[in-house]
Amino acid sequence: MILRELADRLGCQLRGDGSVEITGVAGIEEAGPGDLTFLANRRYVPLLATTKAAAVIVGPKREAPVPCLVSDNPYLTFARAVAMVRPGRRPAPGIDPSARIDPTAELGPDVHVGALAVVGPGVRVGARSVVHPQVVLSEGVEVGEDCVLHSAVQVREHCRLGDRVIVQNGAVIGADGFGFARDDDGRYHKFPQVGIVVIEDDVEIGALTAVDRAALGETRIARGCKVDNLVQIGHSVTVGEHTVLAGQVGIAGSSHVGKGATLAGQVGVAGHLTIGDGAIATAQTGIPSSVGAGEVVSGYPAIDNRTWLRSSAVFARLPDLQRRVRELERRLESLTDRLGRPGEEE
Amino acid sequence: MILRELADRLGCQLRGDGSVEITGVAGIEEAGPGDLTFLANRRYVPLLATTKAAAVIVGPKREAPVPCLVSDNPYLTFARAVAMVRPGRRPAPGIDPSARIDPTAELGPDVHVGALAVVGPGVRVGARSVVHPQVVLSEGVEVGEDCVLHSAVQVREHCRLGDRVIVQNGAVIGADGFGFARDDDGRYHKFPQVGIVVIEDDVEIGALTAVDRAALGETRIARGCKVDNLVQIGHSVTVGEHTVLAGQVGIAGSSHVGKGATLAGQVGVAGHLTIGDGAIATAQTGIPSSVGAGEVVSGYPAIDNRTWLRSSAVFARLPDLQRRVRELERRLESLTDRLGRPGEEE
Amino acid sequence: MILRELADRLGCQLRGDGSVEITGVAGIEEAGPGDLTFLANRRYVPLLATTKAAAVIVGPKREAPVPCLVSDNPYLTFARAVAMVRPGRRPAPGIDPSARIDPTAELGPDVHVGALAVVGPGVRVGARSVVHPQVVLSEGVEVGEDCVLHSAVQVREHCRLGDRVIVQNGAVIGADGFGFARDDDGRYHKFPQVGIVVIEDDVEIGALTAVDRAALGETRIARGCKVDNLVQIGHSVTVGEHTVLAGQVGIAGSSHVGKGATLAGQVGVAGHLTIGDGAIATAQTGIPSSVGAGEVVSGYPAIDNRTWLRSSAVFARLPDLQRRVRELERRLESLTDRLGRPGEEE
Repeated sequence: MILRELADRLGCQLRGDGSVEITGVAGIEEAGPGDLTFLANRRYVPLLATTKAAAVIVGPKREAPVPCLVSDNPYLTFARAVAMVRPGRRPAPGIDPSARIDPTAELGPDVHVGALAVVGPGVRVGARSVVHPQVVLSEGVEVGEDCVLHSAVQVREHCRLGDRVIVQNGAVIGADGFGFARDDDGRYHKFPQVGIVVIEDDVEIGALTAVDRAALGETRIARGCKVDNLVQIGHSVTVGEHTVLAGQVGIAGSSHVGKGATLAGQVGVAGHLTIGDGAIATAQTGIPSSVGAGEVVSGYPAIDNRTWLRSSAVFARLPDLQRRVRELERRLESLTDRLGRPGEEE
Repeated sequence: MILRELADRLGCQLRGDGSVEITGVAGIEEAGPGDLTFLANRRYVPLLATTKAAAVIVGPKREAPVPCLVSDNPYLTFARAVAMVRPGRRPAPGIDPSARIDPTAELGPDVHVGALAVVGPGVRVGARSVVHPQVVLSEGVEVGEDCVLHSAVQVREHCRLGDRVIVQNGAVIGADGFGFARDDDGRYHKFPQVGIVVIEDDVEIGALTAVDRAALGETRIARGCKVDNLVQIGHSVTVGEHTVLAGQVGIAGSSHVGKGATLAGQVGVAGHLTIGDGAIATAQTGIPSSVGAGEVVSGYPAIDNRTWLRSSAVFARLPDLQRRVRELERRLESLTDRLGRPGEEE
Repeated sequence: MILRELADRLGCQLRGDGSVEITGVAGIEEAGPGDLTFLANRRYVPLLATTKAAAVIVGPKREAPVPCLVSDNPYLTFARAVAMVRPGRRPAPGIDPSARIDPTAELGPDVHVGALAVVGPGVRVGARSVVHPQVVLSEGVEVGEDCVLHSAVQVREHCRLGDRVIVQNGAVIGADGFGFARDDDGRYHKFPQVGIVVIEDDVEIGALTAVDRAALGETRIARGCKVDNLVQIGHSVTVGEHTVLAGQVGIAGSSHVGKGATLAGQVGVAGHLTIGDGAIATAQTGIPSSVGAGEVVSGYPAIDNRTWLRSSAVFARLPDLQRRVRELERRLESLTDRLGRPGEEE
């Protein structure tokens, strides 16, 4: 594809030679002849001068010695360009003969079901969705249109996925929540998990992530959420629209995460809490109590991020602080001795 | 089912109209007409006055404006009620024709094996156990009676599961432990993992949890343990009876966790330790050394929970504490200057 | 096998009766008649006197009352001995008739493919490799010689594994990286993940571990690395030779871990960092910025390990430190009062 065509399709202003042929995409350091690249991070500005890329997507105020596409959001534009220059190959519609499809399942037009997948009774899969090999859709599962379920995804009975949902390999949607009632002898008895999971439109769920079904009612991941790998989402949790959960996050049962929030890697959220809209928890934060909208928290237990940064800086000098206190005690003692103690006759 | 019948089957005292028809179960806030609910947490007492539930399970001293079932353990009684009002559908006995059953495997009466499951040579599965689609039971695996192995569970060679064991989707029982011997060049050589995993009766293992086989001997999860999702249990670990491991807990090799202990979410336990009976580790605790019976620990490295809470409160004020020490130094210096230093002529 | 034969095959000096029959292997405490054991840890020296083992592998300076094999690295020698005394049973070469092998796939000599495995178009599997049941190798995957892919492993399109690679059950190699571009409305748009994963020779990957494909280019795990269970390796990460990643470690996108490094359990590494050769991070360390070669770091945020140990010791006494500062303030105030404040007329 030539650069001018790409500019047209992306709706970008073109600067320089539009006849350049674009054959690949790459980061600004790795890009070679024929590659389109982008500049979104100020840190990489010096690389513009030396890039071997054929063209670069830049912000409006940025100059470059190679042909440019101009965008207010170069990274987003580059993401769209990658999809054009290196389009993924969608499996052809059709059902692999080795897949086990229950006769009561309803598959929409142009659905693909891969080898050895299992589609249970009453399952419905919407138009153009792709069910990769060895996916299991248990009884009564509903999958919307244009979804992609990668190999080995498990969706348990009666859970529902919206449209354009992507689930990476091995993720488990709708396993039993972790609910047990303890008796007087300290034994645990299973609380039947009779609820479901609802995953709304445009959600992506990472590889080997577990989203548990509710004990009663539903666990819900709202539209546009992006969930990374190995994340644990407990029963009856709700996650608001366009929220991001990074790798290995864990959210205990019945907690509610607001819209547009971000939980960074390995963050843990205790049960029955509310994390407000737009809140941010930095990596490894442990959240034992609710967090207000827009707050940025860190640490374990979570506190305001700036406080945490300052306290962490002091933490690294604690032995010194302790030594200074000991020295103060010694000097004060010595001074007091010298002056005589109150009540002593001098 | 009418409330009186439920009272009889649960062995509960009935207060109020026993002819009320119970058609569902729900939490006290969500409950509507026909629903049975429960009150176990004092926090929700005010909701009793306004609940739309048809009936509620309460403790002996609690009054309610709707018909009640009286129980000393309302949550446990409710768990049992849910199983009566919304009984799960057990798959019918029988072997799906697409399952691959080795001719030397022995399946007990009324076993169910789902689509595309693999049952290897010499495997034994006890009466009434359910093996869902795409489970793999490798050579020589033993599964007791009344077990449920959800889809995509993997049980490796010669591991043994007791009776009434439930394993959620995608869990891996008996993968090789992480054992390597390092040579003088810094290269690692695999230590063959020739032991097994034994999971005793009434254990539940969560989705995508890994329980590694022992290097030599066995890894053992004792009866009644409940293990949540995405938990890592290293080789040769033992976990005592009725212990709870919450989501994303990790236990390194050869550690021993006692009976009736609780490790909350994302807790990590180093290798070769002993965690005593009834010990509790709060969420994200990192345990580098053994913990005594009945201790409650928190933090990283783990310390006594109350100490940790107090220290954490001071942590958030560390910059202030540092400032106060600096101020003390300044004032003491100034006072000393004013008084003249010892040894100086005045 | 008699001990003398084992000594010959292991290239060890034999002390004592070489005609002893070795029928098993066990730890020094568990070993019984016929068992070979080893002593590598000084802590267990007292057990030498009472061990019931038939023979023991010891260092050159160690004496024992039973026949010995002498080795400079007893643990490594024992690992090799275990492989001789209890050799694993390699599945016989051949393709299970239920496996789905694309006609364009190329399987080398003596490959084993288990039940219900899926081998996609253009896949190549090298000589003697074992593909266990329900493994999925997507289009264009390359697997080297003498590899073992345990059941339910997923390898996504075009990823490449070297020789002698072992992948434990349920691991996912090459799922999409977690890359999204945010628009002005706070919505996330998928950045197509068009790169691959390359896993070099002699790597072992643990159960339920996810290694994401690169957005562009490749994610690479260099030769000899050992990766434990439930580890998350983000897109475009590189891990150097002979590095160890313990259970539940998470490495965010585009970070580079050097050679011979060790990240202990539950360590988290933020994105775009460099961890130097031979660096060590102790369990649960959270790494927000690059770490130099050979450094040992701990804590969250990560600091020098010795500093962290000292600061952690003070942390547990913070309430006491705070009380001492308060007491100092009180005493200094009182002393100042007694002396009169500067500027006051006395």
